[in-house]
Amino acid sequence: MYRTHTCGELRKEHLGKSVTLAGWVQGIRDLGNLVFIDLRDRYGMTQLFFDKSSPLAERAKQLGREYVLQVTGFVRERSSKNPQLETGDVEMLVEKLTVLNESKTPPFTIEDVTDGGDDLRMKYRYLDLRRAVVSKNLLHRHRVAQSVREYMDGQGFADVETPFLIKSTPEGARDFVVPSRLNQGQFYALPQSPQTFKQLLMVGGFDRYYQITRCFRDEDLRADRQPEFTQIDCEMAFVEQEDVLQMFEGMVKHVFKKVRGIDLKDFPRMSYTDCLKYYGNDKPDLRFEMRLVELNNLVGGKSFKAFDEAEYVVGIVAENCSEYTRKQTDELTDWVKRPQIGSNGLVFIRCGADGSYKSSVDKYYSADDLKKIAEHCKAQVGDLILILSGGLAKTRRAAGELRLEMGTRLGLRNVEDYKPLWVLDFPLLEWDEEDKRWNAMHHPFTSWKKEDNELINTNPGAVRANAYDVVINGVELSSGSIRIHNRAQQEKMFSLLGLTEEQANYKFGFILNAFEYGAPPHGGIAFGFDRFCSIVISNLDYIRDFIAFPKNNSGRDMMLDAPSDIDARLKKELGL
Amino acid sequence: MYRTHTCGELRKEHLGKSVTLAGWVQGIRDLGNLVFIDLRDRYGMTQLFFDKSSPLAERAKQLGREYVLQVTGFVRERSSKNPQLETGDVEMLVEKLTVLNESKTPPFTIEDVTDGGDDLRMKYRYLDLRRAVVSKNLLHRHRVAQSVREYMDGQGFADVETPFLIKSTPEGARDFVVPSRLNQGQFYALPQSPQTFKQLLMVGGFDRYYQITRCFRDEDLRADRQPEFTQIDCEMAFVEQEDVLQMFEGMVKHVFKKVRGIDLKDFPRMSYTDCLKYYGNDKPDLRFEMRLVELNNLVGGKSFKAFDEAEYVVGIVAENCSEYTRKQTDELTDWVKRPQIGSNGLVFIRCGADGSYKSSVDKYYSADDLKKIAEHCKAQVGDLILILSGGLAKTRRAAGELRLEMGTRLGLRNVEDYKPLWVLDFPLLEWDEEDKRWNAMHHPFTSWKKEDNELINTNPGAVRANAYDVVINGVELSSGSIRIHNRAQQEKMFSLLGLTEEQANYKFGFILNAFEYGAPPHGGIAFGFDRFCSIVISNLDYIRDFIAFPKNNSGRDMMLDAPSDIDARLKKELGL
Repeated sequence: MYRTHTCGELRKEHLGKSVTLAGWVQGIRDLGNLVFIDLRDRYGMTQLFFDKSSPLAERAKQLGREYVLQVTGFVRERSSKNPQLETGDVEMLVEKLTVLNESKTPPFTIEDVTDGGDDLRMKYRYLDLRRAVVSKNLLHRHRVAQSVREYMDGQGFADVETPFLIKSTPEGARDFVVPSRLNQGQFYALPQSPQTFKQLLMVGGFDRYYQITRCFRDEDLRADRQPEFTQIDCEMAFVEQEDVLQMFEGMVKHVFKKVRGIDLKDFPRMSYTDCLKYYGNDKPDLRFEMRLVELNNLVGGKSFKAFDEAEYVVGIVAENCSEYTRKQTDELTDWVKRPQIGSNGLVFIRCGADGSYKSSVDKYYSADDLKKIAEHCKAQVGDLILILSGGLAKTRRAAGELRLEMGTRLGLRNVEDYKPLWVLDFPLLEWDEEDKRWNAMHHPFTSWKKEDNELINTNPGAVRANAYDVVINGVELSSGSIRIHNRAQQEKMFSLLGLTEEQANYKFGFILNAFEYGAPPHGGIAFGFDRFCSIVISNLDYIRDFIAFPKNNSGRDMMLDAPSDIDARLKKELGL
Repeated sequence: MYRTHTCGELRKEHLGKSVTLAGWVQGIRDLGNLVFIDLRDRYGMTQLFFDKSSPLAERAKQLGREYVLQVTGFVRERSSKNPQLETGDVEMLVEKLTVLNESKTPPFTIEDVTDGGDDLRMKYRYLDLRRAVVSKNLLHRHRVAQSVREYMDGQGFADVETPFLIKSTPEGARDFVVPSRLNQGQFYALPQSPQTFKQLLMVGGFDRYYQITRCFRDEDLRADRQPEFTQIDCEMAFVEQEDVLQMFEGMVKHVFKKVRGIDLKDFPRMSYTDCLKYYGNDKPDLRFEMRLVELNNLVGGKSFKAFDEAEYVVGIVAENCSEYTRKQTDELTDWVKRPQIGSNGLVFIRCGADGSYKSSVDKYYSADDLKKIAEHCKAQVGDLILILSGGLAKTRRAAGELRLEMGTRLGLRNVEDYKPLWVLDFPLLEWDEEDKRWNAMHHPFTSWKKEDNELINTNPGAVRANAYDVVINGVELSSGSIRIHNRAQQEKMFSLLGLTEEQANYKFGFILNAFEYGAPPHGGIAFGFDRFCSIVISNLDYIRDFIAFPKNNSGRDMMLDAPSDIDARLKKELGL
């Protein structure tokens, strides 16, 4: 072993002891007579002291940042202590110095706040990982994984590994494929999730399964999407929806308690329909209220064309904002007109401190009209009402976005605050306008509510799924469902999705067959683990900070420079 | 929840209670007046009782094997107890019966000893998994993973996930590749191991890393090789070989203790050279002695051409086998002549109970000659000496195989017995006769012994690596090394392996660069996890039994029928 202690370990209790440390040079202070070096490792930092009388002082001055040293010496009390540092009471009087490796000057500073841009830090990721702000995220990630396993193991779930070289599926357009050398012209696919395998494990009697495993999706990349991502994948047999909700609410609570010391209260529940109605999307941030209020009945018939012709008119109340300047309201109007939001404009009602009501459409609405609207919105004196109008779906979405933006601007999205929620009763299907067909909203293995059995033939869009999501602070952490476990029902589902019987059998014969041999009722859930870590640890939704070697937005690994060309010989062997 | 208890849970203490179970019909016994059903789940089996007076008795008779039932009833004492079964004191008097799912007759019996062949069981793996002998292996595998994590977590190792979509490497001929859609014509590769990433984590200061992760190798398949396999992958910084040996000997001991209750003694150590010399291979089974004894000096000059002309003559002693019949010795001679072994023949010396020595080559060797040989081999009265001759490498290998075969025949390879061993001082390089170049024996990142620094230029084949394997009972469980952490040394190694500077930079620029920014000394090890489980749990080297969804010897998943064709559209998008 190159050391007796780590760089984060020495305290007053070690005074007078001879110890050996190994680590990286964080910085050198050359005070002429004295030389100080801060030596760093994963565990912390220790000050090294070289006396002018020591022949080592001259050598110390010649070292550079990020050199790797092994030093032996005595622990002594510092003359000027550093209370910021855990080892700040002591320093090492160095008696022996070995340079284990040299270092070129790093392309950016290895500090919490660095001068390196994203691309540079991605290319030299191994140096970026030396920064404590980066490494602590990954060390915390391990802690999250541990506490997930602790809970799942304790509940009798078996961690079973499922294969990575599988068969291309109907969501195949997003599959990464792997050409087979032994079966030229054929391909494996990488799993988008272990969905069918965990269901087969239930058919196989495993009863309770989980796995923290990698999944792959070849999407046109958006910001903060990774082609490979990690999932906490879970399944249970002989359960109903309520059992799954209880089990995994328990898991989330356990992780927050263990990793952050936070006691989450019982999760409220809300239907998908109510989420859309009150928050404009299916993953509401409940850290603040500011609900969407439908105003159609109050604003019509006043000759204001924009509202009269709108399918949907909706208001939100920004508390204590009645004194917004014209500049501020104009800026908000511009904000909702951006293509990402796509609204025509914003109408404002100011609920004045003097009890007056003023709006940007006073021409059409009397003070009394405005008062009625304000009362309906439960706006108080001093509040500002923001009103959007247009087509239902689009305007709802826009109002939801505006609500989040106002929440941010008003400081209502507190990073200390966690508001989890179960979203329930999702639709089974959603209409694909482009391909003119139904898609599964969750996935094709999700069952539907018995009560909606009739609708499946008459009005498939209205059928509700036995599906559920955990949402925290506006971020979807997981999504799950009670599955179909019967061949006829699964075939019905495939046919709704436009698969011919032949296609269904070719792609999913194995699971259709499995359902004929005593498949138990079962259901499960999957958590996006990268996102889960990001939320638990930082309460921010930025997964790249929680991945050791992430890819950029074009799916490239900047450090490896991958993807890349491959050997011509290999290509030939693969028949490509 | 569909049940109040599992099928393995009910005991006398539950007598008189009303309980609900769910599970699979293992069997039905229709005694006319009475009907018994054995209901099975992952946890055990419970006997259900239907009285003739109950209208359910008739329904029960109609059920089939593997039907999924939910039953409610009272726990009562059995009239005839079954001490083989943990629930054998009780049964359930069924009052309510729901068929949760029906089942076709399974294609093989769901019993520990089944009538299904390999192919059939692979195709219906979800049914095979219902057999307790199969599922218990996977549940034990989870236990092994848990105890590995327990130890590694306790030692401060960080579990860091490394990427699966990486860059093709020089051992590229064995890479599975993944065509990129966003970067047409380019490919990712799937990792054969996270080797370079774990080294970069050390450069990044992670200090102690581990991961239980999937690896991929596109080999021409042999029996019991899988294209995807799991590895316990570990790395440490600021360590020397001895530190790594201590740490991972501790890990293996911990797992055996936790999973099997076995206290392993300290592992003996043996050099690669001695392994070959005494056991004929580099992974000796030490459950029995029967060492190889070189006989060249004793057998020469007696006009026996086969020995005179042989580069190597070697004997092993089979205890108490002097009375082997002619049929037995002929059979052994045939065994060593098989092409897999490839020897010319066997010479026997019988050490008779009467103190006599008789051999199959008495024409050339006197009783006194034979006695000297026997003494040299430390053969006792009643033993049989088996002698092989020929070229050194081939004959050693053959003698090693014969030793194992005799060990098996003589019952010396006890399945209760575990004999671990560290094999040390492997050669750095091995000569590739086909391609006329050096290959890395371990991998290209392995460092060599300082003492052999001179040899690297004069006699590379004699250079010893800082490499080490854990072997148990003749099975290689892991392999590791102290790595190179210096650019010049790594370049030297690549050049020895025949990579041009350009090739080295193209394929490994990232790690060569990393070594210039303060790479610490580091080393590690990787355990084949499938094999580790197989040895820990069953003391047999048959990994397929420990994989939930294995592939067959042609790399096919028989259940999914993968690899397979893919969508023409997807193919086109990938530019294939």
